Amino acid sequence: MTEKLRAKVRLFVEQPLGAVQPVPLTREQAHYLFGVMRMAVGDAVALFNGRDGEWQADVAEAGKRGGILVCREQSQPQVMPPDVWLLFAPIKKARTDFIVEKAVEMGVRRIVPVQTAHTNSERIRQDRLQAHAVEAAEQCGGVFVPEVAELTKLDRLLNTWDTARQIAFCDEALAGETGRLPAAPGPWAILIGPEGGFSEDERKRLRGMDHATPISLGPRILRADTAAVAALTLWQSTLGDWV
Amino acid sequence: MTEKLRAKVRLFVEQPLGAVQPVPLTREQAHYLFGVMRMAVGDAVALFNGRDGEWQADVAEAGKRGGILVCREQSQPQVMPPDVWLLFAPIKKARTDFIVEKAVEMGVRRIVPVQTAHTNSERIRQDRLQAHAVEAAEQCGGVFVPEVAELTKLDRLLNTWDTARQIAFCDEALAGETGRLPAAPGPWAILIGPEGGFSEDERKRLRGMDHATPISLGPRILRADTAAVAALTLWQSTLGDWV
Repeated sequence: MTEKLRAKVRLFVEQPLGAVQPVPLTREQAHYLFGVMRMAVGDAVALFNGRDGEWQADVAEAGKRGGILVCREQSQPQVMPPDVWLLFAPIKKARTDFIVEKAVEMGVRRIVPVQTAHTNSERIRQDRLQAHAVEAAEQCGGVFVPEVAELTKLDRLLNTWDTARQIAFCDEALAGETGRLPAAPGPWAILIGPEGGFSEDERKRLRGMDHATPISLGPRILRADTAAVAALTLWQSTLGDWV
Repeated sequence: MTEKLRAKVRLFVEQPLGAVQPVPLTREQAHYLFGVMRMAVGDAVALFNGRDGEWQADVAEAGKRGGILVCREQSQPQVMPPDVWLLFAPIKKARTDFIVEKAVEMGVRRIVPVQTAHTNSERIRQDRLQAHAVEAAEQCGGVFVPEVAELTKLDRLLNTWDTARQIAFCDEALAGETGRLPAAPGPWAILIGPEGGFSEDERKRLRGMDHATPISLGPRILRADTAAVAALTLWQSTLGDWV
């Protein structure tokens, strides 16, 4: 791409992106670009929509309640993360936000908050977490935003689980034991237990599943957000796109 | 150990620990245990000092300005993390705190904040970061607290570097390229670059050092705190105590 005007601001949009494609802005986007970021006509913005890669666009019209950007050239091709999901038990709000942020940075296809026997959280704000995933992708330079699913009971999720997708579950009770991620290709999900670990029933059920493997994250007990990054590192460097 | 009274509160202390050893409390510790946590004579506290493992202790005297705990029995032997250091460029306060917390959870011997050409932070509060490391160890069940060094210029650090300690440096510019951690035993340091990456001079210098190896953390750009956990995961699972 040309050296000129590489945008510092990145924005996720819903619209299709392509050469000379005009992109109308919502009121919120216009407020952010022109009110908060003080941008003006002629300034460059990087756009991505999760499908068409990253495009450099220029501000063509700027108003208080809207505006139009026009795509100039593609600056990144669309790249999808490998087919791995992150399943985790939501904890305190700030940590949950962190887990979503880290999952986006580490590259997952889907984020699934699960309710376990020892999960304190009864509900989550799915829309807020999805917005947080968008923000994380904007900030880390990614071109893909994983879907954040609704909170689902672990039991129910396992009842209807597609057995083509293997599960690596991180079990606090394994701290200090071995439990290596098998180098088996195909779709995977990483399941991070809640603080306080899985219940005995959950552990028994997971251990009884053919397509589920316990993995150890070393001798120290990790917080859920640390465990998510650690487990995804093992997965990405063994089976994912770090190879 | 006996089932009775496994303490929920963990406290780092400076004093030696051993059977029937009395441990006098500072004013701050007494305030925390008796004021904040509402503990009383007979309650159990877990103690560690970084040298004698973890001990279950009972409150023998409780006052507003002090108190005495008495060690009952050892509940964890002293275990040292493997000989790996984390070197990182301090960023925003909250993220810096996070990196220290993560380093303690992941198990490092020493934490060294470094000033690079692109580091914004001119100084750090070493005492505050050290206190944060203590708190992280208290919360994650560890028995070791890594020392947090004073902020040091990267250049100066490399000038006097003990070449017996290898350096794995995580280079943002490597995103997408390969760069594997070599399975070479011995002491190591992980160096996480600042946001914005190393300068050209720094990169050249590091690449020219025999005992320094660039490692890649995949195709996506990671925040410094994510990169620290990811790099330490690779190290611990290849050369450390996750093996």
